[in-house]
This record gives sequence, C-alpha cells and structure tokens, in this order.
Amino acid sequence: MSEFSFKLEATDEAARAGRILTTRGEIPTPIFMPVGTQATVKSMLPDQLENAGAKIILGNTYHLHLRPGDELIRNQGGLHEFMSWRGPILTDSGGFQVYSLGEKVRITDEGAAFQSHIDGSRVFISPEDAVRIQRNLGSDVQMVFDECVKLPSEKERVRDAMERTHRWAVRCKAEFEREPPHGAAQFAIVQGGVHEDLRRESAEFLRALDFPGYAIGGLSVGEDQKAMLQTLEAVAVHLPVEKPRYLMGVGTPRDIVEAIHRGVDMFDCVLPTRNARHAQAFTSEGTMSLKTLQFREDKRPLDEKCSCVACAKFSRAYIRHLVVAGEILASILLTIHNVSYYLDLTRKARESIVGGTWDIFRKNFTSA
Amino acid sequence: MSEFSFKLEATDEAARAGRILTTRGEIPTPIFMPVGTQATVKSMLPDQLENAGAKIILGNTYHLHLRPGDELIRNQGGLHEFMSWRGPILTDSGGFQVYSLGEKVRITDEGAAFQSHIDGSRVFISPEDAVRIQRNLGSDVQMVFDECVKLPSEKERVRDAMERTHRWAVRCKAEFEREPPHGAAQFAIVQGGVHEDLRRESAEFLRALDFPGYAIGGLSVGEDQKAMLQTLEAVAVHLPVEKPRYLMGVGTPRDIVEAIHRGVDMFDCVLPTRNARHAQAFTSEGTMSLKTLQFREDKRPLDEKCSCVACAKFSRAYIRHLVVAGEILASILLTIHNVSYYLDLTRKARESIVGGTWDIFRKNFTSA
Repeated sequence: MSEFSFKLEATDEAARAGRILTTRGEIPTPIFMPVGTQATVKSMLPDQLENAGAKIILGNTYHLHLRPGDELIRNQGGLHEFMSWRGPILTDSGGFQVYSLGEKVRITDEGAAFQSHIDGSRVFISPEDAVRIQRNLGSDVQMVFDECVKLPSEKERVRDAMERTHRWAVRCKAEFEREPPHGAAQFAIVQGGVHEDLRRESAEFLRALDFPGYAIGGLSVGEDQKAMLQTLEAVAVHLPVEKPRYLMGVGTPRDIVEAIHRGVDMFDCVLPTRNARHAQAFTSEGTMSLKTLQFREDKRPLDEKCSCVACAKFSRAYIRHLVVAGEILASILLTIHNVSYYLDLTRKARESIVGGTWDIFRKNFTSA
Repeated sequence: MSEFSFKLEATDEAARAGRILTTRGEIPTPIFMPVGTQATVKSMLPDQLENAGAKIILGNTYHLHLRPGDELIRNQGGLHEFMSWRGPILTDSGGFQVYSLGEKVRITDEGAAFQSHIDGSRVFISPEDAVRIQRNLGSDVQMVFDECVKLPSEKERVRDAMERTHRWAVRCKAEFEREPPHGAAQFAIVQGGVHEDLRRESAEFLRALDFPGYAIGGLSVGEDQKAMLQTLEAVAVHLPVEKPRYLMGVGTPRDIVEAIHRGVDMFDCVLPTRNARHAQAFTSEGTMSLKTLQFREDKRPLDEKCSCVACAKFSRAYIRHLVVAGEILASILLTIHNVSYYLDLTRKARESIVGGTWDIFRKNFTSA
C-alpha cells in the first residue's frame, strides 16, 4: 500500500477530478464524506456505507475524546477496528465543535478550555492535544486545530482567529512530525472569514508550510451562499493545484455542485444523515418530506433515478407509514438513501469532469 | 409451490421437530417468529432478518388496521410487498391487542368496540372483520379472533371468554372459507386460563372444527411460569399430533425451551426486539445489560458462541459506547443479535430433537 498522495486526473473549467491514495484505499475526488461523529454514521452499518459507495468517512476528535475517550479507542485497536470500518477515516480537530460551544469556551494561545457537553466537566485541548488525540484514533487524514469565528464578526476578530490558527498550524505540524503515524496525512485549515485579503494571506501562510492537503474552514457559519462562493473562489486560486482541497461542513447538494465548480475536491456535511432522521429525503427532483399526506399511497421509490437499497425495495407509501408510526426503520432507510444520494452526486460530478461535460451537468442540476 | 401443510419429522420425548410448507417457503419447527407489529421488525431490514435465519415473521391485525389501514396495504400489493418481506407472514387476529386495551374496550358477542390508541377514534372489530382485515393483509397464517382474559380471573369469567372464543372461531372459519385466500391457513386459539378442564374442553371443541393449526392463547398474562407450563402440558395432550402448535407471545429463552419440551412448535415474542432497545442482550451465558461499566473495554463479542453480524464485527466495548452515546446503531446491533439468538435457539433445539439429544440440550441450557 502506498503512502498518502493525491493525483489530479482531469479538470473542466475550475472543476477538478482527482484521486487520493491512502494505505487503506483509494478515494476518487470530488468526494462526499459521510459524518460519523461518535464512531458511527448514525443508523448505518459499515457494509451499508460501503454499498452506498462511501470511500472515506469522518470521525470527530472532540466527541470521541470526551466519549468513549481516545485512549480507550487506541487500546481497542484504533477507530477503524473499534467501529469496524476498513476504509480511510478523516478526523476533524475539534476546532469547529469548540466553536459550536459558543459562550462556554475560553480560547487562548495555549488552547481551548471548555465544559464537556456530556457531564459539565472542565476540559482543555491544546493544538498538541488535538494531534495526540487524532494519533490515538489512528485516522488517515488529521486536521490541524483551528479557531473558527461566527459570521458576521469584526474584521479584527476574524484576523485574530486566523493568526492564532496559523500559530496553531505550526505547532500541530511539529507535533504531527514528532511521531508521524504510518501512512497518515495532516491537512491545514485556511481561515479568514469572508475577507478576500485575509483568505489570501491565510492560504499563502499555510501553503508555505507545505501540508499534503488544505481545508477551507469557517464557511457556512452564518454568511449567505453568495458570500461563501465568492470567498471560495478567492481562496482557491491561492491553493496549490497539486494538493486536495476540502470544504469543511458544506453543504446542500447545490452548495456542493457550486463548490466543485470552484475547484473543491472533498466535502462533509451532516445534512443527509440528520435530515433523514427528520423524514427528509434528498432526491433528483429536490427535497421531499415523507411526513406529508401526499405520499400516503405513492408506490414509487423515494427517487426513481436512485439505485440504493431503500429505493430498490421500498415505496414512498411504506416509508411514510414508518415515519408516521415512529419506526426506527424510517431513519435507517432515509439515511441509506440520502447518503447514497450525496455519494452519487459527487460520483456523477466526477464522471462529468472526466468526460468534459461538467458545464452541462452543473446546468442540469436541479436539486435543492 | 404447495398449499399449507405440516409434517411431523421427529419426536424426542414430547418435543417435536416438524416442517410447515407454505406457498412462500418452508418453515422448520420448532421456530421462533420475530414480531413485526407495524409492518417492520423494529430496526431490522428484511435481508438482515433473512440472514439471521428468520423463516416466518408476525404482523399485527390491530395495529395495521388502524395504521396505515389494511385496505391501503391491500392496494399496495399486500403486506409482503409493502414491507418487502418474501417469506411467510403470520398475522394475529387483534384479540390480544384488544385485551391489552383493558378498560377502554367493550366486548359483546358482536365483537370488540374500543378507542384507537392513536387518535382516540371509535373502532369496532367483529370476528368477520378480523378475517377480512387479515385477508387484505394477505398473510399466510391467519389467527381467529379470540377473547383473552387477564390472570388471575374468576373461573366463570374465564369460561365466558372461552365460550365466546369458540363461537367466534366458528364464525371466523365460516368467513375464512367464504373466500379462502390462496395458500393461506387459519389457526384456532385455545383459551381457558390455567384451568385444565376448560383447556381440555377448548382443545376438544376446536379440534372438532378441524383447523390446520392450533394456537394456545391466554398464557403469559399474569400467571407464574409453573402454572403456564402445567397448563401447556394439559393442553398439549388434547391437540392433534399432526397439526402445528403455536404458543402465543411466549417468552424468555427458558420459557421456549420448556414449551418445546411440552410439544410446542411455534413461538413469537417481543422480548428480543424490545429488550434490544433497552440495551439488553440475550446470550448463551444469560442476559447482559450493555449499559454497565463492566463492558467498557471488553473486546469480546456480545456472545462468543454467536455468528451474527453484530458478533462477527463488533465488540461489547463498541456496543456499550453506542448505548451510552444514545446511538441508533446500538438498537440495530442488539436487535440483530437478539433475534439471531432466538432463531439459533429454536434451530439448535430442532437439531437436538432430530438427533435424539433433546434431553441433553435441555439440561445444558443455562440461559435466562
């Protein structure tokens, strides 16, 4: 098995098709990464993920550090073994979760001090801790610890967070290289809000550190889609062509298509799994709430263009019945479908980029 | 495909091994039937049921009549098509659910009048209705509509319910035969509480009507295990040898072993699925609560003697983590395991009866 590497295979306008090689398998890009916050992609078994086309999934440093604990997971043979997922895993650094705690967190150059959302206990995570936790988890792609700010914020506030993220990136890289896990890579995170000058500064600073991949953080945190896409466009030109680009936590199917159009390779988002548990299906004809009466006797599958297990075997009428009756199988089937939908989306995007028909694909894309 | 039939293949003391033939497949007996109350065995996909060894599952007339409605299911192609289960389905008649409503139901010879537990609307089900509902569902084995009483009750109350059950059995049979569904069979239900004379009277009355199968109802409704087993023993001798015997709603693994020992062929019970959702595993070493701290770092599978998907791929430590974290996958894995455990139990019981080692099997059986 080869070490971590990325090969750009085709471009169509700014859209890119590539391939990430890891010791645990290849990842064709653009790729959607299902979110497995607590060592499980909610309501899915690993073989169902594999059948849906998942090539890499996410784990969460913050959640797994608090419960069941990263040392416990290391002693269980690492996160892959623990959750029985053989493919690659990317772990976020916990920066975004810390940001989500809002008032409950105190951030200094030393790190982030906060109260656990589980039992209220005091927790402190330094940049070095974030790397050590991810080393314990044994992830294939680690993220540096970053500071994220809510938008809108004062530009000085955004600059401060960006500069701290830069200092932390240096420290994370040093800690990572002190004892580099076999085959694993560490990605930097570009910050800078919606300010094009800050984003450029951040991209150039981190680029000089020569990470094997670059994430764009701090987007989809309060700004509108237009501002997000403009920022994305401004960042992309300053990122190295030969490294993968990961837009963190984004987004709707339409967001993903537009981000691919601006040169992004990797995505993660809780929408397909979370919305499934609220009875929403993503389909080629837009989103659909399975709570509504209109599907009561509808014999069609969720999406007539989908070949997932849920669509191959079950009708809208049946899934609506499960939703109304409060059955767990509703969440299971809708999750399988939504994750398949997102994975189909990035797979088809890739095919159209390779085939030189990206422009048509993007124009024909009508989903929400 | 053949019509419904039963062949007794081996006996060992009073324990029986047989085979039920239906148009949708063979059912080796003794057999455990997973409960799919609302057109789903909670948290399991049909292929997971098949992999766990399920040969026949249950549906509930009462629940499906109220929601989504048996006519809707008929229009969707029947219950098998609706829930995508290809094997045989047995539907109860709703008698037991009506009994469970307690004070909220008024029973006369005409039928049962009650308020829906879903929306409080008034519902009336006659014995003929119960047959028509099951015809709409398209089940392979239908149950007659019966009246069940809580134990302990006055003997006269038990006699009244038994006699009404007999009158209803005659009416259900007539309605069934008016338009017999292709390949389906209708089972009678013996009542009579823990009174051996009533049970004998009930068995003889119903036997004279020549049903293709006989259920023993009204047990595990408040009496102790000893009384249940004594009653079972008393009933069994009055049931025809050449027809399958079904003990409704029972029970723990130990109950099942003891009932097989008294000549019962078929079982259903919500324990494996319900207890899974409360973090309890049935194992060859007894029951186990996955909430407890003792499994925090336990790398072993739930049951070292089990080969289900949950045991093949996941540790107690992982499943405990899922339970503590409130993850849906905990219910999924524990359900898969528990249903597999019950199905393994009846499969192994059958093997030992066929092999003439039933006595050893029963003595070695140590589970709860």
